[in-house]
Amino acid sequence: MRDLKWTPAEKAIARKAFDLALGRELDALIREAKDRARRIEQPPELWELERYLTQRRKDIDRLYDYRYSMLPLIFGNLLRQGRLAEHDLRGLAEDKLAHIRSYVRL
Amino acid sequence: MRDLKWTPAEKAIARKAFDLALGRELDALIREAKDRARRIEQPPELWELERYLTQRRKDIDRLYDYRYSMLPLIFGNLLRQGRLAEHDLRGLAEDKLAHIRSYVRL
Repeated sequence: MRDLKWTPAEKAIARKAFDLALGRELDALIREAKDRARRIEQPPELWELERYLTQRRKDIDRLYDYRYSMLPLIFGNLLRQGRLAEHDLRGLAEDKLAHIRSYVRL
Repeated sequence: MRDLKWTPAEKAIARKAFDLALGRELDALIREAKDRARRIEQPPELWELERYLTQRRKDIDRLYDYRYSMLPLIFGNLLRQGRLAEHDLRGLAEDKLAHIRSYVRL
């Protein structure tokens, strides 16, 4: 996977798709956090919100690791989770798409 | 301070005042957290809320340390911050009140 060569055009497509997915992930998280905060009535729920945010931050940091060697795995995960659609990756060459699809199936 | 003798009646008063102050602190924090969450628009503000909750949890854990040897200092702090009023401590003997007042003045 380290041998895949990303052209400048593919790098631009990858960056845009990555940022799109991350933006969607964060938008959804903000909505969820607001919703959880609104429903808080007792102190334990407040600390539950804190733990939830810490965990989500760590998950997102781990998942969104922008290295070219990691992108096929990341995009595979995002397609599987529905955070990206195939058309968001249109323009990538078949060698990258083949790797990405292999991760979608995992 | 370790030599102060707390009667059962004083212990009940102390516990009630302590729980009252802690309850007020947590109620205020819940209101503040809801307000901050409602105003979030961008991801950095979400992580700021997480850091804020972590910090406040640690501050509260440190401040509300229910040991008899610590109570005069704690009550002194709470009176100074306005989280307790003198009448919340009515019934404590003069030896404890003298210690507490010495911390209010610090």
